[in-house]
Order: sequence, then structure tokens, then C-alpha cells
Amino acid sequence: MALVVQKYGGSSLESADRIKRVAERIVATRKAGNDVVVVCSAMGDTTDELLDLAQQVNPVPPEREMDMLLTAGERISNALVAMAISAQGAEAWSFTGSQAGVVTTSVHGNARIIDVTPSRVTEALEQGYIALVAGFQGVSQDTKDITTLGRGGSDTTAVALAAALNADVCEIYSDVDGVYTADPRIVSNARKLDTIPYEEMLELAASGSKILHLRSVEYARRYGVPIRVRSSYSDKPGTTVTGSIEEIPVEQALITGVAHDRSEAKITVTGVPDHAGAAARIFRVVADAEIDIDMVLQNISDTAGRTDITFTLSKANGPKAVSELEKIKEELDFSAVLYDDHVGKVSLVGAGMRSHPGVTAAFCEALAKVGVNIEIINTSEIRISVLIRDEQLDDAVRAIHEAFELGGDEEAVVYAGSGR
Amino acid sequence: MALVVQKYGGSSLESADRIKRVAERIVATRKAGNDVVVVCSAMGDTTDELLDLAQQVNPVPPEREMDMLLTAGERISNALVAMAISAQGAEAWSFTGSQAGVVTTSVHGNARIIDVTPSRVTEALEQGYIALVAGFQGVSQDTKDITTLGRGGSDTTAVALAAALNADVCEIYSDVDGVYTADPRIVSNARKLDTIPYEEMLELAASGSKILHLRSVEYARRYGVPIRVRSSYSDKPGTTVTGSIEEIPVEQALITGVAHDRSEAKITVTGVPDHAGAAARIFRVVADAEIDIDMVLQNISDTAGRTDITFTLSKANGPKAVSELEKIKEELDFSAVLYDDHVGKVSLVGAGMRSHPGVTAAFCEALAKVGVNIEIINTSEIRISVLIRDEQLDDAVRAIHEAFELGGDEEAVVYAGSGR
Repeated sequence: MALVVQKYGGSSLESADRIKRVAERIVATRKAGNDVVVVCSAMGDTTDELLDLAQQVNPVPPEREMDMLLTAGERISNALVAMAISAQGAEAWSFTGSQAGVVTTSVHGNARIIDVTPSRVTEALEQGYIALVAGFQGVSQDTKDITTLGRGGSDTTAVALAAALNADVCEIYSDVDGVYTADPRIVSNARKLDTIPYEEMLELAASGSKILHLRSVEYARRYGVPIRVRSSYSDKPGTTVTGSIEEIPVEQALITGVAHDRSEAKITVTGVPDHAGAAARIFRVVADAEIDIDMVLQNISDTAGRTDITFTLSKANGPKAVSELEKIKEELDFSAVLYDDHVGKVSLVGAGMRSHPGVTAAFCEALAKVGVNIEIINTSEIRISVLIRDEQLDDAVRAIHEAFELGGDEEAVVYAGSGR
Repeated sequence: MALVVQKYGGSSLESADRIKRVAERIVATRKAGNDVVVVCSAMGDTTDELLDLAQQVNPVPPEREMDMLLTAGERISNALVAMAISAQGAEAWSFTGSQAGVVTTSVHGNARIIDVTPSRVTEALEQGYIALVAGFQGVSQDTKDITTLGRGGSDTTAVALAAALNADVCEIYSDVDGVYTADPRIVSNARKLDTIPYEEMLELAASGSKILHLRSVEYARRYGVPIRVRSSYSDKPGTTVTGSIEEIPVEQALITGVAHDRSEAKITVTGVPDHAGAAARIFRVVADAEIDIDMVLQNISDTAGRTDITFTLSKANGPKAVSELEKIKEELDFSAVLYDDHVGKVSLVGAGMRSHPGVTAAFCEALAKVGVNIEIINTSEIRISVLIRDEQLDDAVRAIHEAFELGGDEEAVVYAGSGR
């Protein structure tokens, strides 16, 4: 008998009908002899509807109250799933994140899990119940206020619970049936991976893949929780995320997949006087606005002793970063702040890069062959990322996927609405 | 500076717009120098929508999960009101019933408050915040599960908080602007009462008046909390419920008002053999089905030693009571169970009855004058109730209201949707 943790996202729960189907799967898993813990996100549009109501009463709602409001969504979906399970012959209790012992920092809207002490969940399992736990939420260790966990919070809740309960697996259900060598909507012969080690999944998640959130993969790696990515619309086994690249013999190490990201924009601060501290000041100003930076490029200074500093960031933060930089224009005496939101990032991930020095060359050649120009390049031990024009992203993804022979023989199955 | 507890019902909160208006009133109360605690019900249709979703996934939803589901409604409304208050320049924190220290029995769907320890509420007030507390809910002392309080639960939450905090007043807001001498939709010159003692309000509530729920008035009387019934659509002072009939000099004691009730049905068990224990068996069977009985009438037995036993109960319980009684028909050897759901109850309430022996006679004469036949009569020290044909209720209410000269000179103001 295994202990299985399952997580269902909002689109898997968007109606009473979908809820009943999810309940069928949960009950089947229980009846197969497993202990089952389920984490549910809020139903389909609930979170957006609540956000809209909030906006109507206050354009800048206080964060503590936003967390009190949004967490109602998960309370509703988990109670309904518990009821559906009960109608199908098994017994279930639902718990809030707080009741399930998810203890967090105090940062409303983006809290981090400090600890998980799921005694009420364990008790429910011991009594033969299925336990539902509201995802995306916990309780602050210091203030005892309810908190939400930020993007990917339900995935993180599920993995953290699986770690605390020493579960055999954490199954993440959505409308995609696994991790592919590239987005199947772009590359028709993209292949579904059977397994993928944690580090490669981390790189894919950081490079734009929306299958799993970075934080949940990090948590799974730290605690050794196997994650299985599956579709709630089929019985296919999905992709298992487990193991370390260290365990893969160097000779066997492969190139795993291609990720792409359309969510970034590029900022270039031009004509920056090339003295110590200028770049630091630019990055400090952006950091103080609580904006994360991704790729960075600094030109060699020209004869006038000036240089351009370029970096990428999330498009959502673009306007704010530009405005913060304009404020120090006089102080630093630079020429201008340029903003370009027609960029895209494409990345190749694979443990095999460590042992194959020609990978970077082959990567750049594949792009050149389809006329794609590289604006910034950034690498890690097992990843190469480049910034290019966003309208060339599809061509670039296909070119790289083909150059590294990642494709399978079957046409990839694309579900309606897939792509998370 | 006073400590004011305010309660707003679902129709006062049915849209973002109404929520903003309620927030205006709350902020005004705070800015007048008071400490303010607010209890909100769920927004307008939320509870019904959640009940509907529940029905779709399980026709007989487990009660624990029903409480987990329904309490999301109050969480949403209280967080939104807190946000609206914040947009208007005051600060507010919302709390669930559990967070506010409302401790209850374990009976899901109909829990009773055991204790209220509102330390987080007090702390919020001390820091200058307005405290919002979700009505209709608490946490079970034994199981630590979330519970809901049954009908009128939000009124009870408000009064219980007011008692625990030693508040100066508990204001209950709805779309009616006070307690009237009769339902203003039936009696056009019904008069709004300025004050009414607890015992009379209890009798009115028990006799069909929907202004305040019985349990909350009982709670208020026990702990000496003044209740003010006001409209959320105007600034009128409303009706204050406070004081005991003992404090009213006998000479001054008045007849206060007329209540009516369309929610009851009548059951008659005919041809019951007139021996000791027959009536007891009938009432026991009904009680074991957890059904409350209101008025009772037992005829004198006829020459055959048989009698009819009649009682009233809520229409909702009618079918169940009939079916339980049919089960003991053979055992008790009675003739039949008759069911009549075209009855109505009309009651006259007033401390003055204690000292005026002619009241019952005048009451019956007033009804006879308009051709209303009395089927059952039931009295307490300060109330007379009769069961009549439901189609005669309006005539009866008007006749009694006029006979006891309860009317005022002004036409009663009837708000759209009033009558709760």
C-alpha cells in the first residue's frame, strides 16, 4: 500500500461535472489500496471572480484581506470534492492549509512554507479517510494570519505535504499528459518523456516551461519526492520527475528538451559612463523595486568610455523598471532607457551538455541556419538560453528540436486547452 | 467613546456597490470616535449558490463538509468589507469565527455557541482597527472542526460578541427600519416602536416575527446586551430591544404588537383510544424525529372513549411527522392522521396582559367581528396566540391591531424587499 498525494488544478475542477470525475479517480486510487491525500486549487474562474470583486471595492486591496478573500476559493473546491467522494462510496475530510499544518512566513500573497505538521491529515488517513487539503495557502508562524503562497502555490503545497508525509509519489494533474521534449503545439513530433531528473526539470521550469512551478520542483528535489505529471483526462502514466543528473552515467547523458518563454522584455540603458559602481547602481535600483532580473549583457565600453547595459525581466515589471531607471538618469548621466517587449527566450536543457563540448556550437549553427539572430546568450552547466526576436520563437524551437534529434515517431497529442 | 457591534445581513451586502455603502456607515461610526466590530453574513445569493453546487455533486452532502463549504461565503463578504473600509480611509482586519474565538458544540449545521474568547478582536480594536467577524460560524470545542450556527446564526454571532466584549450596543441592520406594531405590508398604519423589552421581543420572534431570531434575543436578554434594529438604507434610529417587563410599572404596561406566522401546518391524529400513555407515545414519536411541536389541542374523549389529538409544527417537518405517525397507527389503534397546511397563527403580545383580564375577551371578540374562527388557542403571561385559516390571516391581523388601538397617524414606510 502506498501513500499517494494528488494535486488537481483549477481547470480540472471547473464545474460540478469535472469535480465528480476527479472524485472518481481519487476513489479509484483509494480503492486500489492506497492512502490518498488530495490538494485542490480553486475552481476554474473563482480566483479571477474574487479578484474582480476586490478591485470593485478597492483598487489597491490590502494584502492581508486579499489572502483572506482568495483562500475562500480553495475552501469551496476542497469541500465540494470531499462531498463528491462521499457520494461515490468513500469517506473524505477537507482541511484548510492552516488546519493541515502548513506554516509559512508572513509575506501576504507570496508566503514561503516554513514547516508542514500534518497531524490532522495523518489522523484522517489512519481512520481510513481520504484527506483533502486546500492548496495555495497556509498560516503565518508569526502573526497567525492566513497567507497565500504565490504562483504555483498549489503545486508547492502538494509537494510539501508529500515530503512531510513521506509519500511514495506526488501526482500533479492538469490538462497536459506529461513533460515533452518541446511544446507539442509548436513541434508536432515532440516526444513525451518517461522520466526526467530534478535538475533538468528545474532548468526547464526556469526557462519558460509552465508544466511545473520552479518552487515545487526545488522542494521536491530537496526532499526527494518523486513527482508524476499526468493528465486528469486520461489514464496515461505521464512523466516522472525524480533522480539526480549525478546518477546518469556521463556517456548516457542526453539532451532532454527545448523550452521557450514569451513573458520577458528587454531593457537597455545606453551611454552609461564606464566607471565602477554604475552597473551596480542600475541593478540596485531595479532590485529595490522588487523586480527580478534574468539575462544580462554589458557591452565593452566605446572610445568615449561609455557602455550599454542590457537585461531582461518579466514584461509585467517592465514599466515599473523603466520608470525607476528614469529617476536616476541625471544622477548616473546615462543617455537613455530603451524598452523592447518583442523578445523571446529559447533554451536547450540536458545533462549531456556537461560532457559534449560541441553543443553550444551546434545550437548556434541550428539557429543561424533558419536565420535567427542571437541578441543575448546565457548558459549553465546543463542549459543554453538565448534571447531572440519573439516572432522567430517557433522557428527557433523547431530548428533546435530537430538539430538535436529530439523528436519521436508519433504525432504529439495536443488536448484542447492544453498549455496551462 | 462607545464599543459598537454592527451586523449586516446578506441583502445589505449583495453587490460591490452595497458593500461600499455599508463600509461608509462603518467608517462614519468609527470616525465618530467609537470602537467598531462588524459581523457580516454572506453576500446576497452566495449561500444558495454554494448549496446548489453541493447538491450537484452529492444529493445528501456530509454535514462536516457542508459547514466547510458554506463558511466560505462569510469569509468572502467580510474580507471585501474590510477592503472597502480600507479604501475609505480607515483600517480593518477580518477574522473567521474560529479566529475570533467563537467556540461551539459539534452539531454541524446547528451548532450552539459555548463560549466567545475574542482576544484577536480586542487586540485589533486596541490597535485602532475595525474588526470584521464572519457570522454564522465557529469552531467545535471537541473536534476543532468548523461549524455553522443554524438559522439566525449571524445575529447570534453579533450578540454573543457584543456580550463577550461588553459592548454598549449591538446594531442589527437589514432592510426594515425597526420593529413595528404589526407587519407594515398588512397594516398600513402600523407604528414603529422606539423600544421593546426583551420578553416581548422574544414572544414576537417566537410568534412569527422575522425581524430578529429567537436565539439571538435570548442571548441578548441573558447577558443584558441592548439590540438596536435599524435599516441599512437610512439613518433612522430604529427600535431598541432592552430592559425587562419587570421594570415597566403595571399601570403603564401596554399591548405592544401583533405577529403572524404562515409557516406552520396542523396534524390531527383522530380516534385515539383514551388511555394513559397514548398522547405521550404520539409526542415521543414526533420528538424522536427531532421535530418541534408548537400548539397542542386535545379534545375531551367521546362516548366511545376515543379522542382527537391536534398539534402544530413547521410545514417543513410535516411530511416526516405524518410518516412517523403512520408507523405507529396499528400499535396505538388510532383512526387516521390528518394533515392541514392551510393554517396560520396570529398573536398579540404585550406586558399589559398581566394586569388586564379583559384582553383575551377583547381579542376573541375582534376576531369574531370579522368572521374569523379560532381553531386552537394558546397563551402565555404576555401573549395570546390563535390558529386560524391562513386565508384569513391578513383580516385577523388588521382586526386585532385596530381593536387594541395600536396604529399610529403616519402611514408606515415599507421598503422594497422588506420583510426579510
